[in-house]
Amino acid sequence: MLYKRAMRFTKSKSGVCAPGFRAAGGREGKYGVAVIAADVPCTVAGVFTKNAVASGGVHLDRQRIKGRIQAVIANSGNANTCVPSSIEDAKAMAAGCAKELGIDESGVAVASTGIIGKRLDVQKVTGLTKTAVAGLSRSAKASRDAARAIMTTDTKPKSYAITYRGVHVGGIAKGAGMIHPDMATMLAFITTNAKVSKARLQSALSQAVEDSFNMVSVDGDMSTNDTVLALASGERSCPPKVLAAMLDEVCRELAKRIAHDGEGASKALTVNVTGAKSKHQARTVARAITTSPLIKTAIYGANPNWGRIVMRVGAVTDVSFEKMSISLSSSRGSMKILSQGKSKTSTDKSFKRAETILQAKSISIAVDLGVGGQSATAWGCDLTPEYVRINAEYS
Amino acid sequence: MLYKRAMRFTKSKSGVCAPGFRAAGGREGKYGVAVIAADVPCTVAGVFTKNAVASGGVHLDRQRIKGRIQAVIANSGNANTCVPSSIEDAKAMAAGCAKELGIDESGVAVASTGIIGKRLDVQKVTGLTKTAVAGLSRSAKASRDAARAIMTTDTKPKSYAITYRGVHVGGIAKGAGMIHPDMATMLAFITTNAKVSKARLQSALSQAVEDSFNMVSVDGDMSTNDTVLALASGERSCPPKVLAAMLDEVCRELAKRIAHDGEGASKALTVNVTGAKSKHQARTVARAITTSPLIKTAIYGANPNWGRIVMRVGAVTDVSFEKMSISLSSSRGSMKILSQGKSKTSTDKSFKRAETILQAKSISIAVDLGVGGQSATAWGCDLTPEYVRINAEYS
Repeated sequence: MLYKRAMRFTKSKSGVCAPGFRAAGGREGKYGVAVIAADVPCTVAGVFTKNAVASGGVHLDRQRIKGRIQAVIANSGNANTCVPSSIEDAKAMAAGCAKELGIDESGVAVASTGIIGKRLDVQKVTGLTKTAVAGLSRSAKASRDAARAIMTTDTKPKSYAITYRGVHVGGIAKGAGMIHPDMATMLAFITTNAKVSKARLQSALSQAVEDSFNMVSVDGDMSTNDTVLALASGERSCPPKVLAAMLDEVCRELAKRIAHDGEGASKALTVNVTGAKSKHQARTVARAITTSPLIKTAIYGANPNWGRIVMRVGAVTDVSFEKMSISLSSSRGSMKILSQGKSKTSTDKSFKRAETILQAKSISIAVDLGVGGQSATAWGCDLTPEYVRINAEYS
Repeated sequence: MLYKRAMRFTKSKSGVCAPGFRAAGGREGKYGVAVIAADVPCTVAGVFTKNAVASGGVHLDRQRIKGRIQAVIANSGNANTCVPSSIEDAKAMAAGCAKELGIDESGVAVASTGIIGKRLDVQKVTGLTKTAVAGLSRSAKASRDAARAIMTTDTKPKSYAITYRGVHVGGIAKGAGMIHPDMATMLAFITTNAKVSKARLQSALSQAVEDSFNMVSVDGDMSTNDTVLALASGERSCPPKVLAAMLDEVCRELAKRIAHDGEGASKALTVNVTGAKSKHQARTVARAITTSPLIKTAIYGANPNWGRIVMRVGAVTDVSFEKMSISLSSSRGSMKILSQGKSKTSTDKSFKRAETILQAKSISIAVDLGVGGQSATAWGCDLTPEYVRINAEYS
């Protein structure tokens, strides 16, 4: 990604409202509906859950993204999964949206998030769609409304957009759930005014998802509804490498925000793994650390227990303890807690310093495996009593 | 296991004190020491952690079990892992024990559990060993003392023994930790007066561990110290199939007790998977359910959310939702909550009934995948705010 390093993208507040796109969102009780609509049918790419059980929307989208897509309708409050009517109801959602927009039904993609196994209230969703379509706008607020409409246990809407020489790439996302082994749904919708072929858009999106959303959720262990869609209106020419770098940045930023807003989280965790012998090893280790309940609770308790990190790493890959180094950093400082197998927290003073670093709200753990030149980043959060409370009650 | 079904083993209170074995245990501060000593050098088999990082005791035992073993010394309070002196200190523990017993040092196996990365206090362990050896006894109480000495955050000692036509098989174990992806140490020591070849003992133990301890901990993801040792004194002849069935029962019972005494657990969980197309699929699904934070918190909250179970199953294997059935049972009743893809908790009354079943202290979940004839059982516990508290503070 040398190309990317040479570029400086400008942040924008437009969210999912790249030029040529409008958005809106509304809520009623447990249900929320977001609509994203393009002025023209768009080139589209999608990445979906690998779960053997999938929602009606996912089944529908897998077919529909073979053509062009002009609008996305997404609801929160019901996953539209594990009910006999799920594909039929997803189609009805799309039809309702197409009718309001006056476009072809096959140009509408559908996504849902919420409880599994209960039938979707199509009437309520259609009602909300009508209001949303009437309020479609290109404003930053409209993008925020859409991001807010798809929230479940998220505590804040997630939106990120950048521009570079007239090209806009921006998106909204929802996460929450534990965002790890068996997370709740992750949805992300990205729009761009760039001109790009379908094949290039799909390959750039797949790569970006691999290094972003897949580093907060574990491969092959996604929820029934996970959906990432990218729509390109084709208005503006753009070198493929630039678009890939922009997609990468938007996906990483949205993924990070999802991870850091994990259910009941009190602290954000970023894990950087370096010195790995392969990209696969680096990814495996980074993800393993962010998904370890023992490490997540240690972060919650500001407990600089490097033994748990070493144990977790040794459990998922063949490493040599004597070559491992671990550092902690936050707004409260940074220090090595393990240097090539030697503890750096054995004195009371050094242990307390490490504790202090972990008392911040955003923590970074850097692990150097000392065996190669590959690296990876994963994002996560702590495990708190609040997480247990939310999930014991949610139904 | 038809052979096993035809046999009825008699429960015994002797624990690890099979005829020809004595035990003792003592504690001082954070440290505990258990000694198990045989009258004669024993045939031995062992199963150890697959973690790339292992304790000094594990390294030592892997060598020593090539010969005969006459005693086991185990300590709690320090894992003797990730310190440069770990093998040297494990040898010193063994030497101290051998000296007190007046036996050859190479005949002593060593196990440790506790905090990682701090040096073991060999002097303290040696002092406790002296007292323990002086108090060695064949009594049930002595076995209990040994079981108690190796506890860390376990809430009760774990011991189980059976007899059949003069053959005794019994053991003690310690677990706690999360007993799943990145659990704390699991130790189990089993003794028998049976006569058996080393090869047969190893193969019977490996098979028993596969269906027991490995169904509470995830394969390849063990702690740095996990150790299961079986010592056979050779006093009594015994058909190999009988011994295998007895080892199987003892390991399953100890594993179940470990799982149900998970850190901070308020409820015990047993998961039976049937109708799988392969043993591997059955195991994978059973383990995935017991290790899901979302399902564990739902059990804690008595929330009959079958959607989470379906999502978890679909995430780890290729299944057809329409063929899946799920039942719940406990002392408060039993019912199907999903029947071949159809919800059985859609009415308020049925939902409440399912909630009531989950309010018991010991819960069984039965999942029928409906695609074959293979089955597996896994054991676990709920995830509670208490778990978070213990692990945020433990260091």
